[in-house]
Amino acid sequence: MRFTTLAMAASLLSGSVMAEDKPFAIAIHGGAGTIVADKLTAEQKQAYRTALKEAVDAGHNVLATGGDSLAAVTAAIIILENNPLFNAGKGAVYNFAGGHELDAAIMDGKTMNAGAVAGVTNIANPIKLASAVMLHSPHVMLAGQGAEEFALEQGFSTVTPNYFDTDARKLQWQNAIEKIKQDQQHNKNYQASIHQFTLEDKFGTVGAVALDKQGNLAAGTSTGGMTAKRFGRIGDSPVIGAGTYAENGVCAVSATGHGEYFIRYQVAGDICARVKYQDISIVQAADQVINKRLIKAGGTGGVIAIDHRGNIATPFNTDGMYRATRKNNEDAQVLIWQQE
Amino acid sequence: MRFTTLAMAASLLSGSVMAEDKPFAIAIHGGAGTIVADKLTAEQKQAYRTALKEAVDAGHNVLATGGDSLAAVTAAIIILENNPLFNAGKGAVYNFAGGHELDAAIMDGKTMNAGAVAGVTNIANPIKLASAVMLHSPHVMLAGQGAEEFALEQGFSTVTPNYFDTDARKLQWQNAIEKIKQDQQHNKNYQASIHQFTLEDKFGTVGAVALDKQGNLAAGTSTGGMTAKRFGRIGDSPVIGAGTYAENGVCAVSATGHGEYFIRYQVAGDICARVKYQDISIVQAADQVINKRLIKAGGTGGVIAIDHRGNIATPFNTDGMYRATRKNNEDAQVLIWQQE
Repeated sequence: MRFTTLAMAASLLSGSVMAEDKPFAIAIHGGAGTIVADKLTAEQKQAYRTALKEAVDAGHNVLATGGDSLAAVTAAIIILENNPLFNAGKGAVYNFAGGHELDAAIMDGKTMNAGAVAGVTNIANPIKLASAVMLHSPHVMLAGQGAEEFALEQGFSTVTPNYFDTDARKLQWQNAIEKIKQDQQHNKNYQASIHQFTLEDKFGTVGAVALDKQGNLAAGTSTGGMTAKRFGRIGDSPVIGAGTYAENGVCAVSATGHGEYFIRYQVAGDICARVKYQDISIVQAADQVINKRLIKAGGTGGVIAIDHRGNIATPFNTDGMYRATRKNNEDAQVLIWQQE
Repeated sequence: MRFTTLAMAASLLSGSVMAEDKPFAIAIHGGAGTIVADKLTAEQKQAYRTALKEAVDAGHNVLATGGDSLAAVTAAIIILENNPLFNAGKGAVYNFAGGHELDAAIMDGKTMNAGAVAGVTNIANPIKLASAVMLHSPHVMLAGQGAEEFALEQGFSTVTPNYFDTDARKLQWQNAIEKIKQDQQHNKNYQASIHQFTLEDKFGTVGAVALDKQGNLAAGTSTGGMTAKRFGRIGDSPVIGAGTYAENGVCAVSATGHGEYFIRYQVAGDICARVKYQDISIVQAADQVINKRLIKAGGTGGVIAIDHRGNIATPFNTDGMYRATRKNNEDAQVLIWQQE
């Protein structure tokens, strides 16, 4: 009897919570690319899953306790930036010269405000600097030394560039430089070599999108870019509408993949435009762009996308994409490959 | 009798030319902003009109003789970059430190390829460098010294930074720095000062869009950015989908105005998305974005836009926009204000 009453009370409580509460959800990614299952040890797979779960839970916790989507996105991305498994913050790939140049962007779907930094070398968490650009500067996009001067003015502490060094990324860089040298001996120039890398390399950009209980959407992305990148190359992550976009009532998107295609095809913006103007679902829109338009163009990668009802799409046209989602009071889902 | 036969022959000839020829057209701009008619002398007005006509005619000549839209856009922009009246190339505004940082982008609607440079200090015609990025690099966007290294590798000749100095822009810069100093004495920081400038300043970005006889669309934009800009600020011009966009069968757009708004609202991309997904005219789409969406957001500026039939829209929500259009074998139209 007492048990039944309790169960009824719990059921009523649950019902009232469901009725009162607005949907909230978060999705994160840690990069898409050629992720060959056989090459990852059980320990490595577990390390990725643990990191993804930690990040999605951190963002989810912000949302569950009434925090806003910007804070949730930032909390999740900081964890991924701090983890050397991912190509963002600590663990960023090496550029041609053997250094690290980091890009990041964040967008607030409520205000349509945005902040982005490109080519930053001494800030541990570029997503925080992108937030500062959004909140404390009249500009949207700051690059290179100028962005670092802005960081100093905003009271950011800096790290020495070797903070970003990791053995795994150094090895990737050494292999890349070796290939470029070999290619040069066969009269193949840097441009041709780097084009080949982008097709073979595993990408590791990180990002997050979230819907908070107030109905606000936000998106953020952070990356070390492309191994052996040169000439001050800026990829899609800090380009609003390419790798990062959020608009309340429509959708929020963070992308990962071969950035040049994501810029040319405005991937994040195009997905949201289809939702907005064609009135199709986020799943349909994201699938059309990633699995039809991009594949036709030869662009590889994926996105995480969320709409104003908390529906999530995570399409990718590569072998795998490190990703996790968590909606309302459900458990986290952590995935790497298409079929698991 | 002979007269009538000639007239008939001319009519027939005209008819056959009309039937055989595909439409072609070009539109250019030299910036939108507060252009007070009373403050411009008759000579100044004439100088602007002459420069705009020269540029639109150069692009039109490329198209009329069977050249492609990319070549037409480039030809028109080079003339505007070389003219000190406009804020691009020679005549670029001064940044905070008293130098010049130039941005440019070009996009090919046929291939959806694009090239962009940001923060370049020693290339006389940044639009040419953007083209080289598009054609000869695996990347879309290069910034700062890296972009200049790429230029050297591509055989570009450089200019000394003072090539871009002009008395008129120096005076604007001195006034801006003076205002920033005065503001600081009243505890108003740089961020607040620069925000004010963007509302008051006259913008002078240049751009061109074209449709060639083969039906290919292209867009290009070039700028010195914002007077007294700092922190490596990148505006909308080199951001694909913000200040520059082209897609065959849809539209091509080049923007000018308060760049931060054009990035956040993806102005060029949004206009084309409306044409593509809502099936409305280029005139309606450009008007909705510039005169409704942007005005509501507080963003000032304008665009030139062209569709695959050669229809042109040139909306702006400021007092004036330096602009010119020329379609098929018609004469050029050169305009500055809303009503002339």
